[in-house]
Amino acid sequence: MRILILGGDGYLGWPTAMYFSVRGHEVHTVDNYLRRRAHQEAGTDSLTPIMESLPARAAAWRQVTGYRIGVTEGDLCEWPVIEKLLRDFEPETIIHYGEMPSAPYSFISRDHAVFTQYNNVVNTLNVLWAMRDLAPEAHLVKLGTMGEYGTPNIDIEEGFIDIRHNGRSDRLPFPKMPMSWYHASKVHDSTNILMACAIWDLRATDLNQGVVYGIETDETRLDPRFATRFDYDEVFGTALNRFCLEAVIGHPITLYGSGGQTKGYLNILDTLQCVELATLNPPASGEYRVFNQFTEQFSLNQLADRVQEAGHEYGFDVTRQHLENPRVEAEEHYYNAKHSALLDLGLKPHYLSETLIESMFAAIEMHKDRVITQAIMPRTKWRDGARRPVPVPD
Amino acid sequence: MRILILGGDGYLGWPTAMYFSVRGHEVHTVDNYLRRRAHQEAGTDSLTPIMESLPARAAAWRQVTGYRIGVTEGDLCEWPVIEKLLRDFEPETIIHYGEMPSAPYSFISRDHAVFTQYNNVVNTLNVLWAMRDLAPEAHLVKLGTMGEYGTPNIDIEEGFIDIRHNGRSDRLPFPKMPMSWYHASKVHDSTNILMACAIWDLRATDLNQGVVYGIETDETRLDPRFATRFDYDEVFGTALNRFCLEAVIGHPITLYGSGGQTKGYLNILDTLQCVELATLNPPASGEYRVFNQFTEQFSLNQLADRVQEAGHEYGFDVTRQHLENPRVEAEEHYYNAKHSALLDLGLKPHYLSETLIESMFAAIEMHKDRVITQAIMPRTKWRDGARRPVPVPD
Repeated sequence: MRILILGGDGYLGWPTAMYFSVRGHEVHTVDNYLRRRAHQEAGTDSLTPIMESLPARAAAWRQVTGYRIGVTEGDLCEWPVIEKLLRDFEPETIIHYGEMPSAPYSFISRDHAVFTQYNNVVNTLNVLWAMRDLAPEAHLVKLGTMGEYGTPNIDIEEGFIDIRHNGRSDRLPFPKMPMSWYHASKVHDSTNILMACAIWDLRATDLNQGVVYGIETDETRLDPRFATRFDYDEVFGTALNRFCLEAVIGHPITLYGSGGQTKGYLNILDTLQCVELATLNPPASGEYRVFNQFTEQFSLNQLADRVQEAGHEYGFDVTRQHLENPRVEAEEHYYNAKHSALLDLGLKPHYLSETLIESMFAAIEMHKDRVITQAIMPRTKWRDGARRPVPVPD
Repeated sequence: MRILILGGDGYLGWPTAMYFSVRGHEVHTVDNYLRRRAHQEAGTDSLTPIMESLPARAAAWRQVTGYRIGVTEGDLCEWPVIEKLLRDFEPETIIHYGEMPSAPYSFISRDHAVFTQYNNVVNTLNVLWAMRDLAPEAHLVKLGTMGEYGTPNIDIEEGFIDIRHNGRSDRLPFPKMPMSWYHASKVHDSTNILMACAIWDLRATDLNQGVVYGIETDETRLDPRFATRFDYDEVFGTALNRFCLEAVIGHPITLYGSGGQTKGYLNILDTLQCVELATLNPPASGEYRVFNQFTEQFSLNQLADRVQEAGHEYGFDVTRQHLENPRVEAEEHYYNAKHSALLDLGLKPHYLSETLIESMFAAIEMHKDRVITQAIMPRTKWRDGARRPVPVPD
């Protein structure tokens, strides 16, 4: 299958490219190095060294495996970039990871909020219009987020909910309550994609993904140049990955607030499986479907427990620290999100185990000299400046 | 009260400015003439002549009434424009009409779709960030649209719905099913504003407005220079206004499809009342509320009936024509939208009457020599090009 991967330089994009390539698919990637540039501006970096450009990574891949991964360096907000990609590559599946993915980033400043929504909404609009004109039969596999739903006091369904109201009923989009400009941008995308499928008969799968953890896949292990990025900083780092790194370097596990916040999580190996299952089982023309993509729910405290226990076995003395929560979110809440659609398609989950955490410890230890400790603590606060006096210019 | 009106040059913005001004409020307006420029590009125009710039309209207003309406000519997508407005004017209420308001416009091309969402999302984000820093106690009165809801098979509530699901319940945002890039942009705004209220304790009223009809208000009648614009073209014209104009010039009433499409409608006089009621009864800090702003529901066929009947009385021979529907929408559907919140605040509706339609005929007749007939028929099609072959460049 011809598979186009938007955001092919990222934490998930690059492993996905290798995963499909080694399985005999024709893979093309595009990236504008947004994440690398954001790290440069902030003075932070991936734990794993990503020294090479995307073309150089693809060249190394070809040299070692014999498989070819095509590369375009470009910005999907620029129409000619996506137009040329669809015209030349004629993708059958478009896997869209190509967005600014950070909630804290979107709160750094107005510029960051506007950029996040501009970038994500406009590049997805461009993809939809390009599909309309150039690839109307292709299947868009779009990475959404479980954060689109927020934390309602009812079970979260997969994208749609049957509502009975005043004696009538309908199946409608599940109500969304995002709590960051980033998460809201994904809600905007979902609204736009649903509409494009209805109006233009496009086909799309929106993967509302939980928090991904893990540092290695079968392909990243083949060669150090195939490593994927591993972020632990306050802007791009996520809970379990950061907790494991903190355990390795002897930093207290940083819990935001009381730590009762519960979300869905999944192993990076299961991201690859899920994206493959969606790709190999496309929806019908005109169908917009949503899969909740995670395998287990944990609270932050439960994750910290698991890391502390594994750390104890491994010989680390792991402590924990409850920080003032930089976010605005419920710290104790009901959470029960359905996630059966991908299991029904054949997903075989890699559940979180002590062995997995210990293997993450080992992988992190290899690069512990690269850790920038001051990147860990949260500095971006959701409410910051809500009542901030702004200096009057001269 | 100090009232800032975003989009103060528009069909509703200008009458709103005069309405509050004559009632003793301190009014400032801002506009970048987006609508005027879109008409220039398309070779169309308002039926009523709007010869003067916004500052000249405000000068005429001052000359005739003695009241002052402040004017800024500028684009709210530019941060310095909104920042300076909030810093200098210190508004207590911000009435936000300042968006690209046309569904057909958003389907003309990819550029138009991207512009519509960029313009509306970014300028509203700018307003929210500016309120956070410079006017945290101000009340945002935002013009949304009933089109955010689409046509679900259940009763439409005002912004939120109590959902009981698997034995639990919550009050959640009403599911949205917009069917144009423009309507989707308003859904994006609603998501962003709800979040800003939750995170920054801002206060906002989202007025999900139906289709407005009418050409005159108490203030527009005072002087020809106070007329508001009246659009009847395929891009900016709306159902009843266009039907009345068609009756006057002897053009068949243009019904899109079977004409069973049902929506909420209201008189422009009631828009002014509703915005005033929202303004004088602000929500609490942190509260985001939604009012459905319309007074009656009609199908297109019912409206055409009313115009035909009034036309017969008035001496016109009014015919009707069912066109192939350029939109993608349900033509026969359940529709029952709640609209009690504004009535509870004291709204006294001006229901659609034969007298009102005849007064619209009279007002339109005054300018019938200005009608550009070829602007009426729909040329922008929602599905257009869905399977369109794109020429390969040389």
